[in-house]
Amino acid sequence: MTIKEQILEMGASALKASRQLSSLSTEEKNSILLAMAESLEQSSSDILPANKLDIAAAEKNGLTSAMVDRLRLDEKRLAAIADGIRQVASLPDPVGEVMAKWQRPNGIDITQLRVPIGVIGIIFESRPNVTSDAAVLCLKAGNATILRGGSEAIHSNRAIAAALQSGGESAGLPPNSIQLIPITDRESVQHLAEMDQYLDLIIPRGGAGLIEKVVSLARMPVIKHYDGICHVFVDSEADIEMAVSITVDAKTQKPGVCNALETLVVHQDIAQDFIPRAFAELHKRGVELRCDEQSLAISGGDGVKPAEESDWRAEYLDLILSVRVVNDLTGAISHINEFGSQHSDCIVTQNPSRSERFLQEIDSATVFWNTSTRFSDGEEFGFGAEIGISTDKLHARGPMALRELTSYKYLVRGTGQTKAQ
Amino acid sequence: MTIKEQILEMGASALKASRQLSSLSTEEKNSILLAMAESLEQSSSDILPANKLDIAAAEKNGLTSAMVDRLRLDEKRLAAIADGIRQVASLPDPVGEVMAKWQRPNGIDITQLRVPIGVIGIIFESRPNVTSDAAVLCLKAGNATILRGGSEAIHSNRAIAAALQSGGESAGLPPNSIQLIPITDRESVQHLAEMDQYLDLIIPRGGAGLIEKVVSLARMPVIKHYDGICHVFVDSEADIEMAVSITVDAKTQKPGVCNALETLVVHQDIAQDFIPRAFAELHKRGVELRCDEQSLAISGGDGVKPAEESDWRAEYLDLILSVRVVNDLTGAISHINEFGSQHSDCIVTQNPSRSERFLQEIDSATVFWNTSTRFSDGEEFGFGAEIGISTDKLHARGPMALRELTSYKYLVRGTGQTKAQ
Repeated sequence: MTIKEQILEMGASALKASRQLSSLSTEEKNSILLAMAESLEQSSSDILPANKLDIAAAEKNGLTSAMVDRLRLDEKRLAAIADGIRQVASLPDPVGEVMAKWQRPNGIDITQLRVPIGVIGIIFESRPNVTSDAAVLCLKAGNATILRGGSEAIHSNRAIAAALQSGGESAGLPPNSIQLIPITDRESVQHLAEMDQYLDLIIPRGGAGLIEKVVSLARMPVIKHYDGICHVFVDSEADIEMAVSITVDAKTQKPGVCNALETLVVHQDIAQDFIPRAFAELHKRGVELRCDEQSLAISGGDGVKPAEESDWRAEYLDLILSVRVVNDLTGAISHINEFGSQHSDCIVTQNPSRSERFLQEIDSATVFWNTSTRFSDGEEFGFGAEIGISTDKLHARGPMALRELTSYKYLVRGTGQTKAQ
Repeated sequence: MTIKEQILEMGASALKASRQLSSLSTEEKNSILLAMAESLEQSSSDILPANKLDIAAAEKNGLTSAMVDRLRLDEKRLAAIADGIRQVASLPDPVGEVMAKWQRPNGIDITQLRVPIGVIGIIFESRPNVTSDAAVLCLKAGNATILRGGSEAIHSNRAIAAALQSGGESAGLPPNSIQLIPITDRESVQHLAEMDQYLDLIIPRGGAGLIEKVVSLARMPVIKHYDGICHVFVDSEADIEMAVSITVDAKTQKPGVCNALETLVVHQDIAQDFIPRAFAELHKRGVELRCDEQSLAISGGDGVKPAEESDWRAEYLDLILSVRVVNDLTGAISHINEFGSQHSDCIVTQNPSRSERFLQEIDSATVFWNTSTRFSDGEEFGFGAEIGISTDKLHARGPMALRELTSYKYLVRGTGQTKAQ
């Protein structure tokens, strides 16, 4: 069998599984999830040796120690993944929700019912915990998954997927509900992305290169998790202490994530007061500052660099911050809508009418007033879990959790009505 | 300028227009719509001569008289298009709706707000009224549009788009809110479909070939309006009179549309009673019947043909119906989920538990119990207007109207909260 034929066969099996999954009750799905968590912990004697193969290969291939660490599993990390599954079991089931219900003048009753999407393809890189996290969220929402992980974690991924599927089956999981593509050549991404007869959705989780490739190839909907080039705008009417605190938090609390601050935008009327205080705090935390002319002049040039044009479009994911002074709120909105990535942007101001204008006019998934951009997150929103932060505008925007892994259908009940009547 | 450069320039202008459109009030948008309707009627001296050029070309190129008729405009048809615009003005504005609002334990307030999508590309064939219908619905939902119509209607489309844009501008429509690609070569479809830096969504309206092409090329979300291979299943516990009436309505009331019946599925226990009565009514209305072995035997073979395998996947859009007898409800569900197009399917039965199973297990956008599939329609659902029937599962499924032309964003209001706290 060619790789393409193998993947097509997985697609057909996944579709069959998805039809069975869609009629499981919440209780049935939750028992399956608990059995999967149990099985994952019980399978540590399979998973950890498999993981050792990946670690050995990674070290041989000269991966950085940070990358090797992201690959590494141990009993504690496995337990954390299993706890994540139990957490998903405890979340409310989105499937079966009546989203709307109404009657038409001719007497037909229309119900909009939340249902699973069907079959979801997930393409991801390195970290093996994604195998479980993604499959489990999709499953809770009634979907079958076909996973395609990176080559670095292939042994771990295979062992995890096998433990989840077999543990789940012992509690009634339909066969082939969670399938991992056992090969990691690039061809398999293409076949998966073209298989729109079976796949309802594809979610690439990883760097821009991976997403870009999936976007070019995919025939089915893609939900993209692109860069977060996030901004804090410090308005002339900001509380300076609050502005410093939010800037420091958004930049330094966890710099390597998509909702961390990348560009600080400052109103010219507050720049003289705000910039020295903010820079002092940022210097203390080792943040490299890349400044436009005005902020450079105000800072006195100490420990800062001039920004280049490319800095306004940079997602550093590191302790680096670009800084720009603008004339007014309009200038801030223009800068953010032009250079941002429509992810998460914040205004700090005590003036409610200015904040309202910012909230309305910034075209981003989440717009903040007087809070850190780090709250752009499914957990912080109270969703209990998240599959990512969508930078798309269709279907799911911003923090994406169980509800965003569902579709709907209309049920129309009548008593013999015809159109010709 | 190359064609690609021209289209990129249109994209940039549309993005600018969409930012302005998103902050128009409902009243402003409605005044603009009324001015557009007025302008369309006032511009008949531009539009009708332009339409004559298209008609002349169509006749010269040997288009069928049905196709020529679909192209033709006159004062009455223009008035109907203008009335359609006034109708859209009278519909509720989906933009600005608070979809959800909650507070987190740390005191941040989260609001999910309905907003426009942004820039929508619409690629369509022949009928010039689509230029207005599509642009106007998108506009009411606060979106800018780039339209690419077929070559057959290019003169009419240009004149209509110009009348809409200029009429709208007199009432405050931002420049370039409605743009028509003035050329109809195939290259322009490709450039449009690849322009994901400006286009948030692309909607192909037309035949399967057009949709297929857009799906292969598009980098942004596509909402597809594929075939409707719709079914009526007559259960053993059906009211026979109702089943005949629904079958006849779904097949013959308007056979050329996507929600018309294409395959009749009959429970074996009712086939002897139902088939002769149904076939008699269908024969009267000139319906050609393509039957499986069992239905052929019951019909006695009079005026019917044997079905071929391809008939189960055919969207005839004509007075042709394929007929199949199944053993039971399970057989009916299997047939429909395998051969259908997940569009609109119906069960006729007096048994509520059977209908519930059918409603749950049929994986289609709209599933009917004891009503004609012809009700799968935005007007019939009470949406006031529709841009089409989506056969996708993401973002919009089934009848698609103003609400489905929107996205959302989250507004998060705080008092200085940071993640590190």
